[in-house]
Amino acid sequence: MSAPEPRILPVVVVLGIDPGTANTGFGVVVARGARMGALDGGAIETAAGVPLERRLVSIHARVAELIAEHGPVAVAIEELYFGQNARSALAVGQARGAVLLAAGQAGVPCFSYTPQQIKQAVCGSGGAAKDQVQRMVGTLLELPEPPRPDHAADALAVAICHANGAGMRASLDAAAGA
Amino acid sequence: MSAPEPRILPVVVVLGIDPGTANTGFGVVVARGARMGALDGGAIETAAGVPLERRLVSIHARVAELIAEHGPVAVAIEELYFGQNARSALAVGQARGAVLLAAGQAGVPCFSYTPQQIKQAVCGSGGAAKDQVQRMVGTLLELPEPPRPDHAADALAVAICHANGAGMRASLDAAAGA
Repeated sequence: MSAPEPRILPVVVVLGIDPGTANTGFGVVVARGARMGALDGGAIETAAGVPLERRLVSIHARVAELIAEHGPVAVAIEELYFGQNARSALAVGQARGAVLLAAGQAGVPCFSYTPQQIKQAVCGSGGAAKDQVQRMVGTLLELPEPPRPDHAADALAVAICHANGAGMRASLDAAAGA
Repeated sequence: MSAPEPRILPVVVVLGIDPGTANTGFGVVVARGARMGALDGGAIETAAGVPLERRLVSIHARVAELIAEHGPVAVAIEELYFGQNARSALAVGQARGAVLLAAGQAGVPCFSYTPQQIKQAVCGSGGAAKDQVQRMVGTLLELPEPPRPDHAADALAVAICHANGAGMRASLDAAAGA
């Protein structure tokens, strides 16, 4: 009877995004199996007085920069909460379009997760409270304190969700096929 | 009493867009005052089986090409009809984001018009029927027959709406200020 082959888990980097026109959160997570750490996190802020098309240019440029810097295998994006109205869905969609485009231009596959899926992956419950998710993100990534601002914490959470879950298999398969 | 100064109206080019993930209509209108013509028109089609981020890359690339080719003073975009649900608003928003981004990167200002404003500008009535708008677009642009496909006709209509209306003053002012 032979010993089981040692499984060397790959190190993967995931870019998480919580899209919005005024504030797009980003978080870069590095993972090997269940062990994870944060490489970067923050928010891309755009001013309300600037024309929409120029705000989208800023979001797109910063996301493209983050992809070039960290070389993620996947971009994980928070899905819209469909209780929202059409007007806010349109606004989120425009920011999402700029993010997806930056990923598509760099050849990085994108994966979407609903708020419930993210809470489930981070806290083990789809109904977890926002501050509970933020504390758990801090714990999982071994941060000295819960991440700030909120949009960065949400972006790290969606990156964890992808790194943790079935989505990771898909992005590794996509990378192997590329 | 002196004669009124002759007014030489500038020739302006407007790119009209009717955004959608599967089908983005485009139309290029050239105008001097109330006289108009069509320089280009068609639809950017993307296949349903292709990942969203790659579909947005196609839309963005083609819009960027059209801007480089025709040098419009403005991009006029059809605004969402807010009776739509959040899911379709998100989808339109993503395509809109790709279009706005291409314009923003080229420094071309964007203007949005509701379906009502477009019908009013083209037909003189905000409640005009779709085929009436299409026939009127053909007449105003002196086309041998109504434009096809529908998305191209809608895109030409929003370009006419901008070229015709108060929006034109804004885009000329923006160009003068640039």
